[in-house]
Amino acid sequence: MSNANEALLSARRRVAEAAAREAGKLALDRFRNRRFTVEAKGTQDFVSEVDKETEKLIRERLGAVFPEDGFIGEETGGTPDRIVWVVDPIDGTHNFVRGIGFWCVSIGLVVDGKPSVGVIYDPIQDELYSAAAGQGATLNGEAISVSATTEPTEAVVAIGSNFRKPPELHVNTIATLFEERCSHRGQGAGALSLALVSAGRLDGYFENHINSWDVMAGIVLIAEAGGYVNDFMADNGLMEGNTIFACTPGLKGFLSKATGFDC
Amino acid sequence: MSNANEALLSARRRVAEAAAREAGKLALDRFRNRRFTVEAKGTQDFVSEVDKETEKLIRERLGAVFPEDGFIGEETGGTPDRIVWVVDPIDGTHNFVRGIGFWCVSIGLVVDGKPSVGVIYDPIQDELYSAAAGQGATLNGEAISVSATTEPTEAVVAIGSNFRKPPELHVNTIATLFEERCSHRGQGAGALSLALVSAGRLDGYFENHINSWDVMAGIVLIAEAGGYVNDFMADNGLMEGNTIFACTPGLKGFLSKATGFDC
Repeated sequence: MSNANEALLSARRRVAEAAAREAGKLALDRFRNRRFTVEAKGTQDFVSEVDKETEKLIRERLGAVFPEDGFIGEETGGTPDRIVWVVDPIDGTHNFVRGIGFWCVSIGLVVDGKPSVGVIYDPIQDELYSAAAGQGATLNGEAISVSATTEPTEAVVAIGSNFRKPPELHVNTIATLFEERCSHRGQGAGALSLALVSAGRLDGYFENHINSWDVMAGIVLIAEAGGYVNDFMADNGLMEGNTIFACTPGLKGFLSKATGFDC
Repeated sequence: MSNANEALLSARRRVAEAAAREAGKLALDRFRNRRFTVEAKGTQDFVSEVDKETEKLIRERLGAVFPEDGFIGEETGGTPDRIVWVVDPIDGTHNFVRGIGFWCVSIGLVVDGKPSVGVIYDPIQDELYSAAAGQGATLNGEAISVSATTEPTEAVVAIGSNFRKPPELHVNTIATLFEERCSHRGQGAGALSLALVSAGRLDGYFENHINSWDVMAGIVLIAEAGGYVNDFMADNGLMEGNTIFACTPGLKGFLSKATGFDC
């Protein structure tokens, strides 16, 4: 990587880290005092005023330093640019509005079509996951790597679900994991689950269809932590979403079989 | 309830609250510094030295005040007495050993065969759930109640899983929830999931077979918070485990259909 590109990513990574921390602390105060309005976007799909406030704050902080960069946010949308931020202000909104403490702030950056910076902040545990292409991945400043797990009977994987794909796809995956004695989780926040994979706390994450703001930061984290991630950007994944398949390398064959995803 | 019985429960509730907080803080320090040994009890079933230390501490604290009470712990076993503590020192051990922040301390009390005191402490969020029969349920001292949810399409339920029952029981439940557009979670810690139900954060929890130390505190919490819980104590559930079916009343019919559990 050129020095110019490395400097471009390093500067954005630092600003994204600060923005994620600030946004996460704001959201955590609101999570704890429980006073906010919530609207339904569809069946089992919600947005709170905290999502909107948090996205606005992140957009302002990034835009103040990098006014030329593009921005795609879950709540406000956007269009692809050569350098574009891809932001989920609160990943796990349903958990957030119900008072379940599993959600995060996710800030990704795409440069020339390549996922290049990933920052995920878990305010409840005050844990900041951060990575940039070619620079490695860290958790609160310490280097992290994916797990060394190779056996399904020793693995814990999370499977996301939504109502955009036929139920049997999801159900068949759960059935296979169960039969092979692989533990599974469904925690309701894809970005935070991907962060757990990058730190070796989970061994994999799969969801049949997911939006780019849910995964962009996690993709960079897992790749930089030595994990495998599918080519999410294929088939206009940035704007239309795609399947996410991410895991520690030793579990790739098993998880491919269990999910039916060809990788 | 007689005044004598009320005093018996109140005193034990207070001591259990203090023990849960102390044990949870000890376990949280160990969770964060990550230095502890882990043994496998079976496939995907673990015990860490922190489980053992924490159970010992709780047993000492309860025994110092109530030396005549019986004690059944996940790690040390025990036998039923007229007044018996039922303790899971770390519920969600697998999460704990992997570094996933969803686990708790659970202390239940059974008097004359009836679940009578329930205390669950989530150290990461510093949240103490507490209840005693006839005295209501609280979260950090504030009264709590189960949710008012009645529609599956607005519900979030957690489904526990283990390898003691045939996979298809679990898989069929997931399939039905999915088809009915009911969100589901699988977080890997039954006691903490039950606590979430008692506070209205989840709408239900079901697991085909679970041990008494995983659920005893949660049963009291949910009953006192206005929820429905099956008769877990039937068929020697205390010593042999049983099905757990717990939810807000408005979801009972749906969840019974989805799980195939006749209640």
